[in-house]
This record gives sequence, C-alpha cells and structure tokens, in this order.
Amino acid sequence: MPAPALRGAAGRLTRGCVHRAELVRHASCSVQADRGGAVIAVAEVRRFIADAMKAVGTAPDRAHLLADVLVEADYRGHYSHGLNRLELYVDDVSDGSCVASADPRVLRETAATAWVDGGHGLGPVVGRFSMELALSKAKEVGVGWVVAKGSNHYGIAGWYSMLALERKMLGMSFTNTSPLVSPTRSKKAALGTNPISVAVPAGKDSYVLDMATTAAALGKIEMQRRRGQPLPVGWAQGPDGAVTTDADLAYKTQCLMPLGGAEDSAGYKGYGLALMVETFCGLLSGSAYGPDVRRWGSSGETANLGQCFIALDPAAFAPGFEDRAADLIGKLRSMEPADPAKPVLVPGDPERAHMEHVDQQGGVRYVAQQVESSEKLAQRLQITPMKVLA
Amino acid sequence: MPAPALRGAAGRLTRGCVHRAELVRHASCSVQADRGGAVIAVAEVRRFIADAMKAVGTAPDRAHLLADVLVEADYRGHYSHGLNRLELYVDDVSDGSCVASADPRVLRETAATAWVDGGHGLGPVVGRFSMELALSKAKEVGVGWVVAKGSNHYGIAGWYSMLALERKMLGMSFTNTSPLVSPTRSKKAALGTNPISVAVPAGKDSYVLDMATTAAALGKIEMQRRRGQPLPVGWAQGPDGAVTTDADLAYKTQCLMPLGGAEDSAGYKGYGLALMVETFCGLLSGSAYGPDVRRWGSSGETANLGQCFIALDPAAFAPGFEDRAADLIGKLRSMEPADPAKPVLVPGDPERAHMEHVDQQGGVRYVAQQVESSEKLAQRLQITPMKVLA
Repeated sequence: MPAPALRGAAGRLTRGCVHRAELVRHASCSVQADRGGAVIAVAEVRRFIADAMKAVGTAPDRAHLLADVLVEADYRGHYSHGLNRLELYVDDVSDGSCVASADPRVLRETAATAWVDGGHGLGPVVGRFSMELALSKAKEVGVGWVVAKGSNHYGIAGWYSMLALERKMLGMSFTNTSPLVSPTRSKKAALGTNPISVAVPAGKDSYVLDMATTAAALGKIEMQRRRGQPLPVGWAQGPDGAVTTDADLAYKTQCLMPLGGAEDSAGYKGYGLALMVETFCGLLSGSAYGPDVRRWGSSGETANLGQCFIALDPAAFAPGFEDRAADLIGKLRSMEPADPAKPVLVPGDPERAHMEHVDQQGGVRYVAQQVESSEKLAQRLQITPMKVLA
Repeated sequence: MPAPALRGAAGRLTRGCVHRAELVRHASCSVQADRGGAVIAVAEVRRFIADAMKAVGTAPDRAHLLADVLVEADYRGHYSHGLNRLELYVDDVSDGSCVASADPRVLRETAATAWVDGGHGLGPVVGRFSMELALSKAKEVGVGWVVAKGSNHYGIAGWYSMLALERKMLGMSFTNTSPLVSPTRSKKAALGTNPISVAVPAGKDSYVLDMATTAAALGKIEMQRRRGQPLPVGWAQGPDGAVTTDADLAYKTQCLMPLGGAEDSAGYKGYGLALMVETFCGLLSGSAYGPDVRRWGSSGETANLGQCFIALDPAAFAPGFEDRAADLIGKLRSMEPADPAKPVLVPGDPERAHMEHVDQQGGVRYVAQQVESSEKLAQRLQITPMKVLA
C-alpha cells in the first residue's frame, strides 16, 4: 500500500532514478530487518502518533504535523528519529517542558533574515514556520536565513530542507542537540550530533543530504553491542578519552567521535563542522548551546534548542541550475563502482530505495520491542493501539 | 621579525588565546621542520611573489593581492597553498588561461545575492570582489550570498572568510577544484577537494575553520611516501577503487577519499559535503563542475572555477553573539584533554601557533627543494631571488 499522506515532502523524490542498492549505510534499517517484528501501514503509524499527541492535549493540526515528521523518518529508513521517539515527545508535552500550544514569533527581521522565538513549542511547529519564512524571503531576495531559539526536537533535519524542493529552491536545515560528541582531544562530550541537511532540486530528480556530523549514531553502537561485535575504530571513545572498539564500553560512555574519527584521520574536521552547526543554531539564536544543552528525557527542563533554516533560490544566480544538478548527479551515479554489486549513489538514494521497499511491503516494519512499547504507550494514554498488518 | 603586511586579515586572530600545541595536524608544517631548508622573511616572500606576477604582466596592485593571499597560507602553515604554487599562477597568466587584467562584473543581483562573472581573472581578484560584495549586502540585509563563475585558484579559502572578522561578521567561502576525490563506491575521482571555510568573530578572539572535504591532502600522502611509511586506512584509493595503505600506489593513483574514508566509516558524509560545495560553487554559478574541471597545470585551458562567498551579520539575530561565541570556544579549549600534552583546540588555533612560531623565527622556513625551485623561477623570470635569512 502506498503512503499518499507522505508524498507532500517526499513525493517528488520518488520520481528520481532509484538504485536498488542494499541499505548498508542504515544500521537502523538493518536492525529492523534482523529482528522480525511487525509491518504497520504508514497511515496507521501516522494516526497513532497523532492520537498520542492529542491525548496529552496537543491541538489536532499540530499533532498531525508532528506525526508527518516522525513517520517520514521511518518511511525514509531513519528509524532513530521516528516512532521510536514518540514517548519522549509525549513526555515533553506532559511535563510542560514543551509548550504544544506555543506560537513561534518573529523577534527581528530584514528582507533576507529573521530571528524567531519558538516559545518552547513543538519542534516541527517552529521548524515549519521558520522554513516557510526562509522560503518566502528567498522568493523575494534570493536567500532567506532564519534562526530560531526556544525550539524542541524537530525530527529529521531533512524534512525541513525538503520543503524547498517543491518551490524549486535549495533548502538547508541545522539543529543543535544534547552534548554527546567529543571535541577532538577532549575526554568528554561537549557538542551535539549537530546535523546538516541540504536538499537540492534537479528537475524530476533531486539529492538530499541529511547527516549528523559524527561518524556513527548511538543506535549503530547499540546494534554492534547487541550483535556482540566490536566497533570500527573512530566511532566512539571510552571514559579515558581514548578510542574504543568495545561496544559495551562505548554504549556506557556515550561519547561519540566527530566525523573523521580520531585526530590522525581528520576527526578535527567533523568537530569543526559540529561547531559550525552550533554557531548557526545556538550562538546566532541565543538558545542553549554546547555543553549546556539538556540531555533529552532527563528532567522537566526546557530544551531551548537552536535551529537554522536557509532557503536559496537558484534563479538568483546562473540560469539552468536544475539541468546542471541533474547532469552532475547522473554522472555521479554512472561512475564505475569498485564493487559492481554496489552502485555509486547520491545522497538520498538509500532513502528512496527504502521508501520503495516500504511501499511494496505495505508498511513500515518495526522491531518487536518497538511494537510492544507502542502498545504500552497506547494503554498509558488510552488510545487505540496500532493495527499490525503482518 | 613580525609580518605587519599580513596582519590585515589575520591580525585580530593573533590577539586570541594561543595554545602552543604541537602542530600534528599540519603535515606540511612537519615537512618543513623535517627537512631543514631556509628561513625567509615574510615581507621578502611577499615581494618575490609580487615580482614574479608582475614579470608576466600582472598589474602591481593585483600582483600584491595575490602575494598577500599566498604568503598568508605559508604564514598560517598551509604550505601547500602558498609559495609552493606560485609557478602555477605564473604559468596560468603566461599562457593566457588566466586573464590577469580581467575585472569581475555582476551579472545579476538582489539586495542579498549576486551572481558574478570573474572573466577568468585572478582568483584573489574575483574572490575579494565577491566577498566584499557579500559583506556589503550583509550589512544592509543581514546576509550576502555571492557566487562567481569564471574564476581561478584563489589560494586558501580562509583568506576570504576572514575578511568578515574585522566587520564583526561571519564569513564563509567555498571553491570547487579539480577532480581528485572519489565519490563513495566509485573507482575513480569525480569531485574536488572542495574546501569549506567559516570564520567566526568572538570579541578579541575568533575561530576559523578552513578544511578540505577529504580525509587528507595529496601533500600528506607524498610525505608518507617520502618517509617510506604506510598510509592510515581511509586516506586514498588504489586503481581498483579499493582503499590502499600503499603510499607509492596512492600517490600514483591520485584518488583521495572523502572525509570519513570508506563507506563503513561514513565517508559518504564527506562525499555529500563535497557535493554540497560543488552545488554552491559550480552548479549555482554555471562554471565548470565535477569531473569536467580541468587538472591544474595540464594545459592552456581556462579553469573556469566556481566559488561561493557568504557573509552573515550576527546583529540581524540575537544580541550578544560574540560573547556567546567567546564563551563557547573558551569552554571547548578548557575541556579536559585525553592526553595532557595535547590541549583541546578550536579551528584556527594551530594556525595561530604557527604564526607565532614564524614571528619568533623571523620568517617562514621553506624546504630546500622549495628554495631551489624559487631560485630557478627567479632566473626564468629575471627577477631578484629571495634573500635567505638562515
């Protein structure tokens, strides 16, 4: 069964060239495949998330928006940012650290920029408002650069950057997050996984980069641990600040290394990129930043995250942008692969393949543990549990 | 002897906190230290570069600008982008592929953006013009986003981003370069080392990120080769597209891997970042892009590089930006290091330490080979050779 409700942001992507490559890059996908579980229709997951948010007093339109964003993550194969996190959003609204009724407002603006106060509202509410503002400014003056303080977790960064694609613009989105990453040489974490997303239209095609500025996500470490396998060098540090390949120790320490790993493999570049994202988000907006961002789920404290949204109209520059973009990504995909079984991809291709797979399968496959915890949440909130397809 | 002529862009940086850390990150510095050579006063290097450019018909002000940019690279410890490349610039002007007299012109603009034609002029001429334009737009509307086609090699990306620091703005600069980097899974190179630079003011302090989107530069591979040492995993590919640690083979193949290395260590993220830079530069500007950029020094063909310059006025967002930036970089530097001998740094600190070292030493130390090739160039161009201090 296809997932029409999700096609708003992602629909145009699925018209591009799809490589049916194995999704080796997505550890979370592998987890889903490894462990059986249950297939649930995308529309049903969406209904469930919205019901859960409404049960704690979120207005229906906002509950549906949050549901759109979280389901999109699962549909694209980024399971760490979807249904998996629903209870954290529910708890944030329940304990008042997230004010679901808050309306974002513009504190300062120019023709090209805006500073937004999210009022500790829902991340997707703040994010959509800010990205729409960036897009309207870009339509007028070529670029819109919007930063928001007082926000909450906004799901996958790519949801916001992709809003630009239907307008034939480039979209970018960044957020700061809880400190989980060690600056190069540091014993402890001081920065977040601070993602960068860039969505680029290319006629009927596109590419969408959506990446944390770390080598690996915590979820990947958890997977290696469950499998009893060591970590590759450069993913994580132990409590002494040295690189560790011990998955148990790494999971306990919760100190990721930046993209590039250790200093000798250029991890300081990943650290620099994480700092750049923190600059765009926390420092420009005046939100919490760096080591002072709360740990999610830890308290009733507000998250006060900072986020940054950029829209760029290629029509402000050289004519023919989308043709050139399509030409380049076509050339990249047709490069001769080192391993014939693994074609060269562009960012977003693994997600395309995952979405096709979900459509063919009739829904998203969740691990048993996820289905069980969702059932418990349904009982707790007294909402209808998700209907399992297979 | 200090280098007053260089303090324009870099001066404010040297007032910041300087860590006297060993410069392990800068292979090129290590090369200089390893091999003896000669110390030459910064002003003398600058004079020599300007004389060389004037000898092939470059107007004095432009020759001096190029000299400023190249010497700044050496002063900061990025030897691969300084005097080392002078002959390539000389040859480009001599054979007409670079039109030293060309004036950049604006083809299209809004209050916040501009599309510039560099007319195949000198990279620093195009770059300074474009960055100044971005800064003046940011002063008016908070952000300026300028892309240029028809440019040439512009030296270190950081020279342009740092122009923002004196205006209390954030500066960014990007350029595409010759294909030397393999997209993840590809047997061959299709993208350049595509650098990202971000300069951020922080009161009397600052940080300056200036990084190629690869794990290592070609120069680092050459150094390992000379030392007869193997490469770390993730720097380079062999002709079969597989990762190689054979420095000879890697140097012959000239196919670097993106930041992150192979696919399992998240090299696809570095590849995605290189593609993002190519999008900002080649695709937006309509210059040459991707696999079609010429190899430098290969012909009389124009380079037609694309470049992107962004200025951002933090005053358009939350008040107190520089205080927060100073606070965060202070916190990062004071993190407990895993190895007490290696303090935690912020981007730009190794360059600060290098500049202090050059000042103490009275000049830049070049390897013997570099001094000899400069002497040959002096003979060829009939200009006064550089005066060696020690």
